[in-house]
Amino acid sequence: MSLKDPLKQHKELAGKIEMALKAGLDNADDLSTYYTPGVGAVSSYLADHPEEVRDYTWLNNSVAVISDGSSVLGLGDIGPQASLPVMEGKCMLFKKFAGIDAVPVVLDVHSPDEIVNAIKAIASGFGGINLEDIAAPICFEVERKLKRELEMPIMHDDQHGTAIVVLAGLINALKITGKQLKDCKLVINGAGAAGIAIARLLKKYQPDMRILLADSHGALYAGRENLNPVKQHLLSKGTIVSDEKGELEKIISGSDIFIGVSRGNVVSGNMIRSMADKPIVFAMANPTPEIMPDEAKKAGAAVVATGRSDFANQVNNALAFPGIFRGALDSRVNRITSRHKIDAARVIASLVENPDSDNIMPSIFDERLVPQIAKVIT
Amino acid sequence: MSLKDPLKQHKELAGKIEMALKAGLDNADDLSTYYTPGVGAVSSYLADHPEEVRDYTWLNNSVAVISDGSSVLGLGDIGPQASLPVMEGKCMLFKKFAGIDAVPVVLDVHSPDEIVNAIKAIASGFGGINLEDIAAPICFEVERKLKRELEMPIMHDDQHGTAIVVLAGLINALKITGKQLKDCKLVINGAGAAGIAIARLLKKYQPDMRILLADSHGALYAGRENLNPVKQHLLSKGTIVSDEKGELEKIISGSDIFIGVSRGNVVSGNMIRSMADKPIVFAMANPTPEIMPDEAKKAGAAVVATGRSDFANQVNNALAFPGIFRGALDSRVNRITSRHKIDAARVIASLVENPDSDNIMPSIFDERLVPQIAKVIT
Repeated sequence: MSLKDPLKQHKELAGKIEMALKAGLDNADDLSTYYTPGVGAVSSYLADHPEEVRDYTWLNNSVAVISDGSSVLGLGDIGPQASLPVMEGKCMLFKKFAGIDAVPVVLDVHSPDEIVNAIKAIASGFGGINLEDIAAPICFEVERKLKRELEMPIMHDDQHGTAIVVLAGLINALKITGKQLKDCKLVINGAGAAGIAIARLLKKYQPDMRILLADSHGALYAGRENLNPVKQHLLSKGTIVSDEKGELEKIISGSDIFIGVSRGNVVSGNMIRSMADKPIVFAMANPTPEIMPDEAKKAGAAVVATGRSDFANQVNNALAFPGIFRGALDSRVNRITSRHKIDAARVIASLVENPDSDNIMPSIFDERLVPQIAKVIT
Repeated sequence: MSLKDPLKQHKELAGKIEMALKAGLDNADDLSTYYTPGVGAVSSYLADHPEEVRDYTWLNNSVAVISDGSSVLGLGDIGPQASLPVMEGKCMLFKKFAGIDAVPVVLDVHSPDEIVNAIKAIASGFGGINLEDIAAPICFEVERKLKRELEMPIMHDDQHGTAIVVLAGLINALKITGKQLKDCKLVINGAGAAGIAIARLLKKYQPDMRILLADSHGALYAGRENLNPVKQHLLSKGTIVSDEKGELEKIISGSDIFIGVSRGNVVSGNMIRSMADKPIVFAMANPTPEIMPDEAKKAGAAVVATGRSDFANQVNNALAFPGIFRGALDSRVNRITSRHKIDAARVIASLVENPDSDNIMPSIFDERLVPQIAKVIT
């Protein structure tokens, strides 16, 4: 792959997105129709018919891509302005794959209440809200409060987009290994936004499975030190099991599935060899995976997936979020539920007709992807 | 003029603006360059070189068009969502005439501090801020606080855009009547955002002139009831004179110039006849002017201007704001000053080579307009 020099390309473009007009503005007539005085009739009508505002404005097709820049890719807290290229890129994907008009909105506030207040202040001008790269555990509180207070589709993509594509990948990986999820022991390494959302969605999908979640202090268990309220809640609700303790190296032993959303190079070949028969390994740390695919395979992994586009089986959020929001906007769905996420994962998985160990995810360029996901978001 | 049915046109479009990509996103290479992993290099670079963020993002060309919907056209407080068609229209004009990527941001908060906090939270993601249709006197406090706290071009167009085009029109109208502004008595009716900004800018332009300002209670004067702090400040600073009292009907007598930014039909032919020789009448209430042009002319007005596109001499903010922001973005001007506004007004006036009573304003489609204004915003 001949990756162009991203810095050079970005500087040449000086912004990857732009606004465009949906109607000509070529004479006084056009101005009178779309600006004053004509627009006054439209605003006056909408003041009397607020329920019709989507029919007359871009509300029916717009999404704000909102970040405070506190947890950007693998870069951490780089702040709002440095996060702009990522948000602009996300907006490109929204338009390219789903025809959605997405606007980058970066926030120079960082406490949960400030973030929530800023988003609530601007929310009525958009059809949906995609939260992006907001650090855990703040992201959980922000999303929960927004969902309680706003009637519109809201999704923190680092959580739910990731969880959806992981579930989609697992559905196909399990077809290859012939195992049932209910019989599996699954270990997630990384208890940030993605790891926690993956645990929650998998448990909803298959309540009987055993999920262990580890952070930098090792396995989470009841009574352990360094548990924030979100982690405590996962344990007290039984989303994750609490009966194994110790480092990742210890708890990965005997597991059927490893999901890494943590840091590069934290998994060794020996750790893969300690897993159960035909282990499934999703090593999604970026840019360096928890273990490189060739090493994992050499150690016996039946299926290996990463977050990278230059290896087979890229588990990429971009498979999910365009279709999710396309469906939510089209069907005026105000709440993305677990049912939506699971259905979306099933659709994504179903687009790979004959999964094999190097082919569990559809291409992001698969044109069936967005319309078929959108169809189940109702 | 065959005005298309604005409601029908708006419903067909369902949003007048959209996002567009500035680069192709057609294969894995493009995704790697503009999204992950390539974008990570750009964000990482900008985290280390924050002063270069404009070179790599749309910051160099983006403006947020922000309103709380509290004072929309002649409609009053219709709220954020009903104001969206106006903001989208404004964004169309920004793109069409100045190539600027303007995004409508409507706010569902209405106190000065809430508005300021919301704007400060999102400001770092835009290159400039155009405040729009925010009611007086809140608009003054909002703009003052934002200008104090943010280093970027910020302009409340209802104030300053209006003041600039009024000054431009007056410059040409005075050429026709042969009077000097310093010798004129000028009456402004309407002490909202526009009226107050017009008074301030004209006084900066010509400190010797006599400006009377009237609101719905008649002329402002020191010690009068119903004076908010902004109005008191105009009197105490001597921006407006304080030596005439009474209704508009009384104070308009003997004046050389009438500027109406108030309500329809508040000026009669007899009131025009009471003005000085060769009176200039700017009757800019929308959609119904303070006096209709034919009636004002019949009563002896030498020059009549309105805010409407279907009469001669349309005094239209759209003559000013695209060039102002184009210049501010290009020259990285962080503060729009009185000097900028006066220079812009002179440029606008200069584009009418031979002003006559039906031709004091250039066309908004005059292609010299934006580049020549932009050139003086340095």
